[in-house]
Amino acid sequence: MQGTKEPTSPPTAYTPSDRTVPTRSPDRASYDKELVHAVLDEAYVCHLGFVRDGAPVVLPTLFGRIGETLYVHGSTGSRPLRMTGQADPGLPVCLTVTHVDALILARSAFHHSINYRSVVVHGLAYDVTDPEEKRVALDALVDHVVPGRSADSRPANKKELAATAVIRLDLNEVSAKLRTGGVNDEPEDLALPHWAGVVPLRKGYDAPVGDPGLAPGTELPDYLGSL
Amino acid sequence: MQGTKEPTSPPTAYTPSDRTVPTRSPDRASYDKELVHAVLDEAYVCHLGFVRDGAPVVLPTLFGRIGETLYVHGSTGSRPLRMTGQADPGLPVCLTVTHVDALILARSAFHHSINYRSVVVHGLAYDVTDPEEKRVALDALVDHVVPGRSADSRPANKKELAATAVIRLDLNEVSAKLRTGGVNDEPEDLALPHWAGVVPLRKGYDAPVGDPGLAPGTELPDYLGSL
Repeated sequence: MQGTKEPTSPPTAYTPSDRTVPTRSPDRASYDKELVHAVLDEAYVCHLGFVRDGAPVVLPTLFGRIGETLYVHGSTGSRPLRMTGQADPGLPVCLTVTHVDALILARSAFHHSINYRSVVVHGLAYDVTDPEEKRVALDALVDHVVPGRSADSRPANKKELAATAVIRLDLNEVSAKLRTGGVNDEPEDLALPHWAGVVPLRKGYDAPVGDPGLAPGTELPDYLGSL
Repeated sequence: MQGTKEPTSPPTAYTPSDRTVPTRSPDRASYDKELVHAVLDEAYVCHLGFVRDGAPVVLPTLFGRIGETLYVHGSTGSRPLRMTGQADPGLPVCLTVTHVDALILARSAFHHSINYRSVVVHGLAYDVTDPEEKRVALDALVDHVVPGRSADSRPANKKELAATAVIRLDLNEVSAKLRTGGVNDEPEDLALPHWAGVVPLRKGYDAPVGDPGLAPGTELPDYLGSL
């Protein structure tokens, strides 16, 4: 109908950039937002890279996601968080998450590999100064470890909030990279006597161990039974 | 006896530096070489950080270790390997490895954490140009994934060696960081009704899946049965 606007769907993929188009195996790259979110959400830690005195520093850290924004927290005294607070306009960072899914044993040493899923995020990290955004980000960090957990714990008090710095990194310049499938040996190697195949890595949880001092009657919550 | 020298044992720990002494939780840091080696050897991938056009880049990659040297390999066309070949004296890198061992659920959101073991290595990466060192390094990379595997696969041929770049990073400026144990809640939170405790992460392997085209009579090797 004339004058009626079609609703605009948000884009389902990130726009590739010079930094997110790989120099090798471009067929393994993906910019799909849903895939990127799934890889991020499955990870407990990310590896956060920044530059200090001209040299790279890579630290493992917890993180959370709300929509198209990642949050990292830490002590107000920690280096990357302090550096972010002082950076103008923001601190250049690279945040990377990797899952190893299987070992790939080929007949040739050269074709040994792993099946993996990784996400690399480039961008500027900003100090979160708005108290409400900080509070919501801290909930997201706890819920990233165990979904639903933030509602079943004591929220941070003023002293804890003051001791905690939170930085944000928007998902704009992002790519995923994946290897799936089996062995890719050269045709002339197929008759070699070496075993070749896939060794899948198993991931899971052992039974939760309650703190010795639990208040009487405290039961294991449902969200842990389903882990 | 006069004139007899006591044998000098090699140092068992790395010397802390400004970069390897953490600004927070210094009690979690360790410089013990045996511990560092164990954390490195258990990991399938490391996260390699370098600086490109002033911004950090963090990429997951396989690696190997021979004594106090780490090796990373890749296509001669890949960015960090090409940059290392062009860097003089070497490319500043930071190589980090992390294991997540357990989730720590505290009564307070603030004390949620994970048990982890990580190693951070700072230093200059050098292009490996000696053919023999390159060959031995590539064996170490394969054996890092499955110990003993390099002897049971076809070694790289001339073409494959030429297509592969290897960089080395010596273990000098190195630290490990660990969190172990249980929940550290505030005394005044102990009576809260929230479940608190440790959720251990289980790690293991599923049954290896042989490549459909295995040569007749190829059996699953013993070193995979013991995984």
